[in-house]
Amino acid sequence: MMHQLVAAIDIGGTNTVFGLVDLDGQILLKETISTGHFPLPEDLVNAVCERIEIAMQPFSATHMLAGVGIGAPNGNYFNGTIEFAPNLKWNGVIPLVKLFSERLHVQAVLSNDANAATIGEMIFGGAKGMKDFIFITLGTGLGSGIVANGEIILGHDSFAGEIGHVIMFPDGRQCGCGRRGCLETYCSATGIKRTYSDLLMSRRIDTQLEIQDTNAKYIYEKALMGDQDAVTAFDQMGDVLGLALANSVAYTRPEAIFLFGGLAMAGDFIFKPTIESFERNLLNIYKNKIKILPSQLDENNAAILGAASLIIKELNIPDFLK
Amino acid sequence: MMHQLVAAIDIGGTNTVFGLVDLDGQILLKETISTGHFPLPEDLVNAVCERIEIAMQPFSATHMLAGVGIGAPNGNYFNGTIEFAPNLKWNGVIPLVKLFSERLHVQAVLSNDANAATIGEMIFGGAKGMKDFIFITLGTGLGSGIVANGEIILGHDSFAGEIGHVIMFPDGRQCGCGRRGCLETYCSATGIKRTYSDLLMSRRIDTQLEIQDTNAKYIYEKALMGDQDAVTAFDQMGDVLGLALANSVAYTRPEAIFLFGGLAMAGDFIFKPTIESFERNLLNIYKNKIKILPSQLDENNAAILGAASLIIKELNIPDFLK
Repeated sequence: MMHQLVAAIDIGGTNTVFGLVDLDGQILLKETISTGHFPLPEDLVNAVCERIEIAMQPFSATHMLAGVGIGAPNGNYFNGTIEFAPNLKWNGVIPLVKLFSERLHVQAVLSNDANAATIGEMIFGGAKGMKDFIFITLGTGLGSGIVANGEIILGHDSFAGEIGHVIMFPDGRQCGCGRRGCLETYCSATGIKRTYSDLLMSRRIDTQLEIQDTNAKYIYEKALMGDQDAVTAFDQMGDVLGLALANSVAYTRPEAIFLFGGLAMAGDFIFKPTIESFERNLLNIYKNKIKILPSQLDENNAAILGAASLIIKELNIPDFLK
Repeated sequence: MMHQLVAAIDIGGTNTVFGLVDLDGQILLKETISTGHFPLPEDLVNAVCERIEIAMQPFSATHMLAGVGIGAPNGNYFNGTIEFAPNLKWNGVIPLVKLFSERLHVQAVLSNDANAATIGEMIFGGAKGMKDFIFITLGTGLGSGIVANGEIILGHDSFAGEIGHVIMFPDGRQCGCGRRGCLETYCSATGIKRTYSDLLMSRRIDTQLEIQDTNAKYIYEKALMGDQDAVTAFDQMGDVLGLALANSVAYTRPEAIFLFGGLAMAGDFIFKPTIESFERNLLNIYKNKIKILPSQLDENNAAILGAASLIIKELNIPDFLK
């Protein structure tokens, strides 16, 4: 019997990571190329596909390529396109699914990167077997994917799941989206840096240099060393995040909520205040029933496993064929 | 060919309404009995089923009973039970699906009343053909049902869709649920009454009597007569509701949002400020794309059509058999 492999492609503003993944999540090939190196998306597709075809050759007697999964910013699942992604140089609407499937003669599927990681958590991570969960990625901003009834919620135009842009405080912090008080202005690397800076400045500490150099990792290291402002910054982030997640439960009542990304690595500093605020803000019928868990995806491979899981889910490959 | 009918049962704290409905939503029988009259749920089930069996007799040559749909407070879809419903006298867990299906020898299905009305909007109302929409019922409180990917979001334990208990303002109005600032303390008949009273009191108008007698209909009639406090009460409710609905879009990106219930009948008084606030608070990518519409369900029949639609959806009866 031929074993099946899938091609996984994660297109980012800086780099595109691609590879071959088997149905158990083993990564047989992983390469990185510069996205900006290709002024035309067709050239990127060609370069990636050439490498994939070469990498498939040693497996050709035993393995076949079953499909292509693509994670990309502003990826539209329904159209198979990326549309006016602000951090990509390509203009307009790029039909990536068409380009990849015609070039490799297999089915292709595309979604945005947060949705890809969400399906990755379901196929390869901590959400195996779950039909209702929420995936939160704490990076520069706050991304999310919501699974209900075993399917990712795409919404009418594939752009559902923007929990980072829920307005928490109508007169709150200015957000890059032009509005005020969005969740991600408080709960993200950018958000905690702002909180930490505010804390220092409120005590009139002249730390201009320190503030400029601050990033989430630095604040975590400060917290580890017992710095009270750093610990408070995590507490305040957890306070807002816990409230937002409690509100999210009122929408989809997940079995669990997964936190992914650099800040989720801060362990108790982030999980403790988040869970405390979460339980305090939950409606009674939900209390003590919903787990907030660290993602089980390895951060280094999450993007590629997410892209792979998109096509594995789409092909609906039964367990006995794996 | 035998035509199919479904039995529809809406169990409320005061009354139980039941009837026979055909697959086009024509109501062939509709009766009301007092829920409180039956100390045991089995007795209510018997009384309802007897009436249904008698009502079916004239149709027996041409029609068959295809199933039973039940809407009930705290209805658990997965278990087919109602569980500790605070406004029913029956204690504990009542296996209504089992009771009805054993008695009538057909499939039965149960959900909470807001979910039933939501499916009613999808099968018989304005959401026909929609796969992603949100249904909001503005009654004493604020109920909701969320449809994504063509299915109602039940969540892990069937108690998803409690948008009325999203915390809008952490230090806001005291809610009956024990927490503060829930959406329904602002956007419901109770909420607008509170807002109107606050407006009168803030101007030190001694209207103790007026406040006690106030209900949403009274405030609507005042608004119609040009009463500025009444108009402002609607504006303030729309302001909060629009924000809440804009945040809801960030979760499931619906095609439309339907408003149902007495307050939704207030026309422009409620829709205008709601839509204005909604568009102002929407993330850019969602602006001017999502309709806020009045429910197309007749309020008098919504409960029974909702219950009927639960079983019609469950049986997945194809159009050509209708």
